[in-house]
Amino acid sequence: MNQVGIIAKTHTPGIREILKDLREWLCARQIDVFFDQGTGELVEHPSEVHSKAHLPSLVELLVVLGGDGTLLSASRLVGEHDVPILGVNLGSLGFLTEITLDEMFLALDQVLHNEFSTMQRLLLTASVSRDEEQLTEYSALNDVVINKSALARIVDLQTCINGQYVTTYKADGLIVATPTGSTAYNLAAGGPIIHPDMHALIMTPICPHTLTNRPIVIPDASEISIVLESKNEDVFLTLDGQVGLALRHRDVVRIRKAQHMIRLVRPAERNYFEVLRTKLKWGAR
Amino acid sequence: MNQVGIIAKTHTPGIREILKDLREWLCARQIDVFFDQGTGELVEHPSEVHSKAHLPSLVELLVVLGGDGTLLSASRLVGEHDVPILGVNLGSLGFLTEITLDEMFLALDQVLHNEFSTMQRLLLTASVSRDEEQLTEYSALNDVVINKSALARIVDLQTCINGQYVTTYKADGLIVATPTGSTAYNLAAGGPIIHPDMHALIMTPICPHTLTNRPIVIPDASEISIVLESKNEDVFLTLDGQVGLALRHRDVVRIRKAQHMIRLVRPAERNYFEVLRTKLKWGAR
Amino acid sequence: MNQVGIIAKTHTPGIREILKDLREWLCARQIDVFFDQGTGELVEHPSEVHSKAHLPSLVELLVVLGGDGTLLSASRLVGEHDVPILGVNLGSLGFLTEITLDEMFLALDQVLHNEFSTMQRLLLTASVSRDEEQLTEYSALNDVVINKSALARIVDLQTCINGQYVTTYKADGLIVATPTGSTAYNLAAGGPIIHPDMHALIMTPICPHTLTNRPIVIPDASEISIVLESKNEDVFLTLDGQVGLALRHRDVVRIRKAQHMIRLVRPAERNYFEVLRTKLKWGAR
Amino acid sequence: MNQVGIIAKTHTPGIREILKDLREWLCARQIDVFFDQGTGELVEHPSEVHSKAHLPSLVELLVVLGGDGTLLSASRLVGEHDVPILGVNLGSLGFLTEITLDEMFLALDQVLHNEFSTMQRLLLTASVSRDEEQLTEYSALNDVVINKSALARIVDLQTCINGQYVTTYKADGLIVATPTGSTAYNLAAGGPIIHPDMHALIMTPICPHTLTNRPIVIPDASEISIVLESKNEDVFLTLDGQVGLALRHRDVVRIRKAQHMIRLVRPAERNYFEVLRTKLKWGAR
Repeated sequence: MNQVGIIAKTHTPGIREILKDLREWLCARQIDVFFDQGTGELVEHPSEVHSKAHLPSLVELLVVLGGDGTLLSASRLVGEHDVPILGVNLGSLGFLTEITLDEMFLALDQVLHNEFSTMQRLLLTASVSRDEEQLTEYSALNDVVINKSALARIVDLQTCINGQYVTTYKADGLIVATPTGSTAYNLAAGGPIIHPDMHALIMTPICPHTLTNRPIVIPDASEISIVLESKNEDVFLTLDGQVGLALRHRDVVRIRKAQHMIRLVRPAERNYFEVLRTKLKWGAR
Repeated sequence: MNQVGIIAKTHTPGIREILKDLREWLCARQIDVFFDQGTGELVEHPSEVHSKAHLPSLVELLVVLGGDGTLLSASRLVGEHDVPILGVNLGSLGFLTEITLDEMFLALDQVLHNEFSTMQRLLLTASVSRDEEQLTEYSALNDVVINKSALARIVDLQTCINGQYVTTYKADGLIVATPTGSTAYNLAAGGPIIHPDMHALIMTPICPHTLTNRPIVIPDASEISIVLESKNEDVFLTLDGQVGLALRHRDVVRIRKAQHMIRLVRPAERNYFEVLRTKLKWGAR
Repeated sequence: MNQVGIIAKTHTPGIREILKDLREWLCARQIDVFFDQGTGELVEHPSEVHSKAHLPSLVELLVVLGGDGTLLSASRLVGEHDVPILGVNLGSLGFLTEITLDEMFLALDQVLHNEFSTMQRLLLTASVSRDEEQLTEYSALNDVVINKSALARIVDLQTCINGQYVTTYKADGLIVATPTGSTAYNLAAGGPIIHPDMHALIMTPICPHTLTNRPIVIPDASEISIVLESKNEDVFLTLDGQVGLALRHRDVVRIRKAQHMIRLVRPAERNYFEVLRTKLKWGAR
Repeated sequence: MNQVGIIAKTHTPGIREILKDLREWLCARQIDVFFDQGTGELVEHPSEVHSKAHLPSLVELLVVLGGDGTLLSASRLVGEHDVPILGVNLGSLGFLTEITLDEMFLALDQVLHNEFSTMQRLLLTASVSRDEEQLTEYSALNDVVINKSALARIVDLQTCINGQYVTTYKADGLIVATPTGSTAYNLAAGGPIIHPDMHALIMTPICPHTLTNRPIVIPDASEISIVLESKNEDVFLTLDGQVGLALRHRDVVRIRKAQHMIRLVRPAERNYFEVLRTKLKWGAR
């Protein structure tokens, strides 16, 4: 491993010091260090600075420093480049950033000595068609959400899976989540937890007016198409809660598994259920 | 009863004919008929047309033709005027508009002969303070809702009841509903049904990230104050889902029971549980 | 205050020592101490021992040492005797036993100097009729529950309020809870929290097969009658989860507010929402 | 196809006539008809009657007449015999018995002409160990449930997946369901719908006292082990809600996918989502 990329949440207190230490540690091991532009500005002599979108094509490992949000936006960039991501959480333990700052150098050491495993996580692809024409295509690691704004009335979302009509949700919105995203917005909306090894997607309506409309778990090979049936003015498509597009009446959103998965470096000594217990505060009364 | 006001949902198909019949029926009984401006435009020779806000002060009965939405907006105007409202549903049975078009003349006949009962429903008053100054005051029959827009992150809402700290909701938003509103948005967000005779308010978080934050039912004498703690850009206060105001960081929303209640004409032969069963599709499998 | 009764959870480790200290403290203040039989056996020279059922008629204050379960069973005995109950929790903070062992003597001191307030809590009365004849009558502080056993099929419970038909629940069972009991079984079954000052009852189905059957909050003046419509063999009525009766096909359970309320000594410095936060683990992430 | 077995719900009104017609229809096509004992008693000259457990080994097709319950009990007998099952619903449409009486002969005709498809459904195997010794082994098509009786206190269920500790549920019980069973008890307990093509199991607690314990979907290759940690007296293991065993303190229940799946004859013109809509009453308001 000769090239490592670094993307950081730039507003974190103490981030300059962390980046300085990390760069020195890597350089001392003859590793070329690449930064995205925002992160590079925080480092005194950043040898290599590249656009965030370009970074994944240049490195053999991507270190992401921040929270789950930082990792979500980095993962959407990795796309077809099969670069493992090491997520370091600068705050508390995250669902995606399972390595704490204290464990960072130990984890890096293991990666450099090839003593590590990765877990694959599926990404979603969402495309929007308007008047028979495809507007754009997005990817998401957690979820694709169609959501009305605060002032809009409930939306009608006609939903098909593999061309078969499912139902027309009358709700505030609809979440299509990956197993990774099942512990994010999906959980708040009443959806179940999906183990990350599952080849599954979950569709969970947000505040459904039809009380019988329950979350439904479907194979990740499913192609979901959703038509905005109601004439609401303020309905949005959002990806991982970070990127959005205003939808119009009769727009069609098509969601399917992306061709490539991302790979997260997995800390050897931590398992999924331990993270669940810590984050959801399960346990002794 | 000598003066009757009429407010209609003006875009309903066939509304001109309905209004013509209704006006003739009332005039034949020596009753003065008053219209709000929008409704008056649909009638050939409307003797009396007034602003919607002024209408309740002029009449002894208000007939509202439309759906629950039409009645919600009318009820917020009635305010201190103790005018009974007869809600006629032009579509299917509503939670508030319990009289169908077929039953309208029979119900009016009962009202004119003083053979009717009314049910009182409490209204909410919501005021917003910014930098120690009160901006404005609203009323609502169903609910006062604080809600983020589709692209915003979760909001932090520090909530007190009668000056006692309750919790800081981390959620998409928060619903404060009356018993009347308990079967509306509150139900979609997972809240319970509150019988309309209860002197109660219900606080239900929308998609709470703290899974232990459950709906809580409190006395209607409670004074609720909610501070928007997070720096979200797109957070709104909405009243009955119809009127709204953009909130800012540190705004304080104070919610309490309004001084006056509204009175709805109650059809003699229908009870609350029958309406519940019909609207929620309870019953035989 | 000259007579104090003591009921303890007898299997608590260290209870003999606690009772000895408590008795000495009270005797030193010229107070007569009365024990129920089980508790009296743990005390060396218990001057006064009476049956648990008789105790409330003899004293001016009842000290209950244990957990919420101990207080539930004591409260059902207090019945018409207007004796305040001081609940001391020997473990962690309880919903009903809000005074910890450390605070016991301070609280008692306040009570003896008349510097205390009490909160009233409503009790439920449940009677069972079989073949037109009333079998028995029970009281409950938390809840009256109709529940099937593990092997039985779902039960059909035809439910009326004040003689008006509500619905026929098809479920594992039905909970009728007081505000006090709203944070107990009702909460686990998906019901809302009801503030203890509310004059309310809550009906929450357990695992309803009709997904639209939501919890419903009704005035505490309501008379609920429930008929067991299905021919299940193993259906039980339970009171506070502690006392039970096997029900038969066509049995009628009638539930209403008891004539008398109980009074709990309230610690001055603790409020209801603080207890909620502690017990439900609300709060900062 | 030369041998067909028939199992019926014997208490159905009109079942004798249905069986007579069905037998004649099959005999006219030179097919040997086998009955289980209970069903055989309803037929005038049943040539072949066998024990229910023996029947699947003798036939090439099993016709099950009744409801979902009848099919559940039949499917547990099929075990290693790869016999397709044609489930005919004598009442309304079922989740498992998707063929109505009107469609029976058409469906049989398609099967005899080999113009049919089947859907595979996974079965669960549950074994119970007491004091290190395995007591017995069961199978289930819908769900394996651990449930307390009405009078018992909440149970503590220490749960591991593939040897990894998950959590200790404090609840009325725990449901482990297949995708087939996801629309049965699991749905009533708040669990999600799982598409029948998923290789998944779902663990859903019943009335959990820890409010953060949500349903979790796991791969069907998972081995679940559950230890009854609490000393409750009345806790039961039930299979498809039909067969049960009393559990004791420290019993270990191990649940995994059975080695064989069952095959259900699938009506060509009906899809899964249509059945969902019909059974759950989704659709237009």
